Amino acid sequence: MNTKQRKAFGTAAADASLEELAIDRREPSPHDVEMDILYCGICHSDLHAARNEWGGSKYPLVPGHEIIGRVTRVGDHVSKFKMGDMAAIGCIVDSCRTCHYCAEGFEQFCEAGNTIVFGSPDKYLGGSNYGGFSESIVANEDFILHVPAGLDPAAAAPLLCAGITTYSPLRHWKVGPGSRVGIVGIGGLGHLAIKIAKAMGAYVVVFTTSAAKAADAKRLGADEAVLSTDAEQMKQRLKLNMILDTVSAKHNANDYINHLAVDGTLVLVGLPIEPLSIGAFNIVKGRKSVAGSNIGGIAETQEMLDFCAAHNITADIELIGVHDINTAFDRLEHGDVHYRFVVDMATLKG
Amino acid sequence: MNTKQRKAFGTAAADASLEELAIDRREPSPHDVEMDILYCGICHSDLHAARNEWGGSKYPLVPGHEIIGRVTRVGDHVSKFKMGDMAAIGCIVDSCRTCHYCAEGFEQFCEAGNTIVFGSPDKYLGGSNYGGFSESIVANEDFILHVPAGLDPAAAAPLLCAGITTYSPLRHWKVGPGSRVGIVGIGGLGHLAIKIAKAMGAYVVVFTTSAAKAADAKRLGADEAVLSTDAEQMKQRLKLNMILDTVSAKHNANDYINHLAVDGTLVLVGLPIEPLSIGAFNIVKGRKSVAGSNIGGIAETQEMLDFCAAHNITADIELIGVHDINTAFDRLEHGDVHYRFVVDMATLKG
Repeated sequence: MNTKQRKAFGTAAADASLEELAIDRREPSPHDVEMDILYCGICHSDLHAARNEWGGSKYPLVPGHEIIGRVTRVGDHVSKFKMGDMAAIGCIVDSCRTCHYCAEGFEQFCEAGNTIVFGSPDKYLGGSNYGGFSESIVANEDFILHVPAGLDPAAAAPLLCAGITTYSPLRHWKVGPGSRVGIVGIGGLGHLAIKIAKAMGAYVVVFTTSAAKAADAKRLGADEAVLSTDAEQMKQRLKLNMILDTVSAKHNANDYINHLAVDGTLVLVGLPIEPLSIGAFNIVKGRKSVAGSNIGGIAETQEMLDFCAAHNITADIELIGVHDINTAFDRLEHGDVHYRFVVDMATLKG
Repeated sequence: MNTKQRKAFGTAAADASLEELAIDRREPSPHDVEMDILYCGICHSDLHAARNEWGGSKYPLVPGHEIIGRVTRVGDHVSKFKMGDMAAIGCIVDSCRTCHYCAEGFEQFCEAGNTIVFGSPDKYLGGSNYGGFSESIVANEDFILHVPAGLDPAAAAPLLCAGITTYSPLRHWKVGPGSRVGIVGIGGLGHLAIKIAKAMGAYVVVFTTSAAKAADAKRLGADEAVLSTDAEQMKQRLKLNMILDTVSAKHNANDYINHLAVDGTLVLVGLPIEPLSIGAFNIVKGRKSVAGSNIGGIAETQEMLDFCAAHNITADIELIGVHDINTAFDRLEHGDVHYRFVVDMATLKG
C-alpha cells in the first residue's frame, strides 16, 4: 500500500517527552477520506496513554482523538465528503460493521472490538495507528463526522470526545425539560456537560471541590453550585434524576447517591483506578442505580455535533502550539486548565 | 378507640426468644378490614428486626409481614372485601396517599414515609404496630390484597414479601421473552425469582455457592446453574441483561457484573452490611448498571399475586408451628431452609 510520510508529535517511550517525529499515512483507498488536521484537543486519556498509565501502550505513540480538519482528498467511491469540507474524527475510526451493535449505530460496543484512532492495530500498514497530533489523517468516510457551519473549529475539537462522552449518557438517560441533573466535577467533561444538559432543558446542579469553579459554574449555565467539601451544603437532598460523575480521582460516590431522587442514576464517565464503594441501603432505598458510560457511536456523535451547533455550544479552550503539549500535559495532571487544551496544528507545519 | 386483646408471638427484647404474648388490635374503622391470620411466612428481615440487627427496633415486637388470612369483619364503608374472602397483607399497611408516588401506586416510595406492618408508629393506638405472628390483624382495605383462587394459601404467604421483592425489579427492568436473567443465591427470594423470571419468558441462569442447590436449580425452572465457587465456570461471559442479586452476605459484585451484556443491570435486593466494591471500568465498559430495589407498591403486589396464580407459582415451603419459630430463626441464620418457613397460625390458637 502506498504511503506518505508526515510530521507528527508523539513519544517513543512511557517516560519520554513528546517530540516531533515522522509517521506514515496511507494513501486514501476508495472509501477513504484524507484530512489536513487543523485542531486537536487534549484529553486526559492522551496523557494516560502516552505515559502507559493504563498499560498496553505501544510506541512510538502519537495521541490525539479530538480532531478537526479540512478534507484534502477523497477516494473514488466516497459519497459523503468532498474536498474542502470541514470534517472531524473522534475516538473510533473503524469497527466490524456487521455485529448487531454496529448495525444499530453503537460502534462503541462492537463485538469484534472497534479500532480506536491511535494505539490500535493498523489493518492497512501494520503496527499501531497514529492519532491527531499530526499533519493529516486518513480514515474511512463512515467514521468521519461533518462539522456544522457556525461551530468554531478550534473550540469544537473537544466535542469529539468530551462532548460525546457527556452527551451520550444525558441522552440515554432521557434528560430533558423537567429533569434535574447533577454534574460532579468541572473539567473538560464537566464544563461541557453543564452546557449540554442545560441546552436539553434540565435544571443543572454542579458539585465541585473548587470555590473558584463553583463561582464559574453559573457563567457556564448551571442553576446551582454545591461546594462538595462543605458538609453543610452536602447535607441537602437535591432529588436529582441523574448525576453525571466526571471525576477520575478517588471520591465517595455515596455522597452523591444521597442526592438522587427515586429511580435516579449516578453515571460514571470518569475512570477512578480504585473501585467505588457503594452502600447497599443507599441504592436499594428508592431504586437508585450506579452506571457507567463511555463515548458514543458515530451517528450519535454527528447528532451531538448538530445539537451543539444548534445551541451554540463549544468548549472553553486554551489554544496552544504543538510544542506546548508537554507543558500542557503537566498542567492537565494538576487540573490547571479552563477547561480544555486544544492544539493549533498549524504550528507543526511551521 | 375500642380494641380487642389477641394472642401473638413476639419478643420483649433483642436478646430474648420469641414467646406467646397478648396484643391489642383495634376494632375495624369504616374502611378497615379484619382478618383471621391463617399463615405467615418468615423472612430474614423478621429475624433482623427481632434481634435489632439493623437498629431502631421497638419492643415488644411481633414480626411477620407475609400474611394470608380470611376476612372476618369489614367496616361500614368497605367495598373491596366481604366476610369470608381470602386476603393478604404484605409489608405496607398505610401511606400518605397524597404524594405523587402514592398517587401512581408506588407506596414503597411514599414521600411522607409509609407504615410498615410491624414496628411502625401505630396511628390508632399509639406505640408500635404488630405484625403477622398473631391471631388477627386489622388494616385499611386499600392496603389489603385479594388472594386469587387456586393459590395454596400456605405456600402463597411468601409471595407477599419474597415474591414482590423479586417480581417488581423483574418487571421494572422489563424482563420478558428473549431476556437473559441471572439469579444470584437460591434462598427464599432466589427460588421464587427463578420461577417468576421463567414464567415471564426469560432464559434463567442461577449462580450459587452450593452444589446441592445448583442441582436443585433446574427443578425450580432454571435453564443453567453456575457454581460461583468454581473459577472455571465463572470465567464464562454469559451476557445477561439483568442479574437479580439476592445475597445479603458479603460477596464480590464484580464477579457477576462480568456476566452482564451491554446495557445490563445488576439489581441488588439483598442488603449486605458492607458496601459493595464496584470497579469503574467494569461498568463504564458496556454501559452497565448496579441498582437496588425494595418490595413494591400495592397495585403491583396484586398484579404479582394474579401473575403467580396464572402461572401456578408459589414458594417451596416448610410449614411449622408457631412454637417452632425460634428454631426456624436459628436455621434461617444458617441458610438451612428449602426455601421458606411458613407458620401455620392455627397452632397459636390451640
